[in-house]
Amino acid sequence: MLIELFNKGSHRCLMFCDMGAAQDAVQTNQFLIVNGDTGAIIDPGGNLAYNDLYMGVSRQFPPHRLSAILASHADPDIIASLDRWMTATTAPVYISAIWERFVPHFCKPGKTAGRVVGIPDAGMRIPVGDSALLAIPAHFMHSEGNFQFWDADSGILFSGDLGVSVGVDPTRTVNDLGPHLQYMEGFHKRYMVSNKILRLWAAMVRGLPIRMIVPQHGCPMEGPAVQAFIDWAEGLACGVDLLGPADYALPA
Amino acid sequence: MLIELFNKGSHRCLMFCDMGAAQDAVQTNQFLIVNGDTGAIIDPGGNLAYNDLYMGVSRQFPPHRLSAILASHADPDIIASLDRWMTATTAPVYISAIWERFVPHFCKPGKTAGRVVGIPDAGMRIPVGDSALLAIPAHFMHSEGNFQFWDADSGILFSGDLGVSVGVDPTRTVNDLGPHLQYMEGFHKRYMVSNKILRLWAAMVRGLPIRMIVPQHGCPMEGPAVQAFIDWAEGLACGVDLLGPADYALPA
Repeated sequence: MLIELFNKGSHRCLMFCDMGAAQDAVQTNQFLIVNGDTGAIIDPGGNLAYNDLYMGVSRQFPPHRLSAILASHADPDIIASLDRWMTATTAPVYISAIWERFVPHFCKPGKTAGRVVGIPDAGMRIPVGDSALLAIPAHFMHSEGNFQFWDADSGILFSGDLGVSVGVDPTRTVNDLGPHLQYMEGFHKRYMVSNKILRLWAAMVRGLPIRMIVPQHGCPMEGPAVQAFIDWAEGLACGVDLLGPADYALPA
Repeated sequence: MLIELFNKGSHRCLMFCDMGAAQDAVQTNQFLIVNGDTGAIIDPGGNLAYNDLYMGVSRQFPPHRLSAILASHADPDIIASLDRWMTATTAPVYISAIWERFVPHFCKPGKTAGRVVGIPDAGMRIPVGDSALLAIPAHFMHSEGNFQFWDADSGILFSGDLGVSVGVDPTRTVNDLGPHLQYMEGFHKRYMVSNKILRLWAAMVRGLPIRMIVPQHGCPMEGPAVQAFIDWAEGLACGVDLLGPADYALPA
């Protein structure tokens, strides 16, 4: 299913949310940014999603004109389709520099040669036509080398695994965070790394005029849910905060 | 290249360290455990490694008789070849329960149906013929859901990304940790998540009669290097310990 997150003149942000859906696999969202005659894909997903997504993108934009493939981190649901996108396009893949030498393992030999751009830990600006996506640091949320992508033109923060909701209808946009937290809490407590990092992230993004936070699984958040989510994340104990000796014991 | 880590009667542990080597990709080790007429593979690697590894394994053991494919976590250099191993064998893949619904994204639709065994956070015993591998908790070293595999018969701890060395000759076994630390320090400071976790791990593994620690990249460690490594890891500040506000700032 295609969801139009933003459409103003020559700049569009599109979300796909049921590409290659499979009962034994977690639901994922993929994103297409179109600016004039240039486009970028964010987190194109795994091999499950590839065929559906390629066809879905083709209806909106010629894939061979994509100028960038952006990956928030190196997990299979994010970018395991890399081998096929390297064949279908001439675009480089942008990913954390700490995963630069790991992503070739998704591919057959030679496929990524000269086509991986390592995003430095501090982040970078990635041009897309007349606009740009800003790769902002999201390390340890959850991956060690992790970026979110800020699109100033639409006011959308593509937040990767932060803000994820599980077991929901991803076509629904959340305005009121309260009733939605039950779908977020378990995931964030287990997959996010520590409250220290969530506090650093909250302090950073308070400087951005965010209209919408759109995660890689589950529902986009907008309106009052945006600030409510930032406040909630800032206060959440998670990951290593919650572990102790009983969690590191030899099994019987 | 094939390295025999252990060989006693009907139990053998073999390491492959240059399968599908590529200049733009990090070096990886894969492991084959053979017990009688049963076998298991640990961390079979990505698509780069698959062809070489399949042939290498075939010279030692018929791949269709493998009873288990074990993955320490869900990174591409660990298990991006999953689709092909699902075709080549009838073995299930054992991986952290928190990645159970993510690994199907490595594969074409249906490939993993009924063949993913989620290892619970506390770990489990995985039989291999008359022996067993013990999946022991290694969460956040580095992956959120992460296991090491302890083989009591050989005294080998297959440590995944803990104990990794980069830019070394992996066919060399390290006895003296001191001169080797220069190849480990950068990786562990950036990819391991926090000292709290390393301390919990050290306390747990001090209860094991470890003869050898064998990581997924770089050199095996044995003799005095085993305890020296545990001591070193226990004292290492890393990951979120080292990050502050300057690391979470909007790029220019």
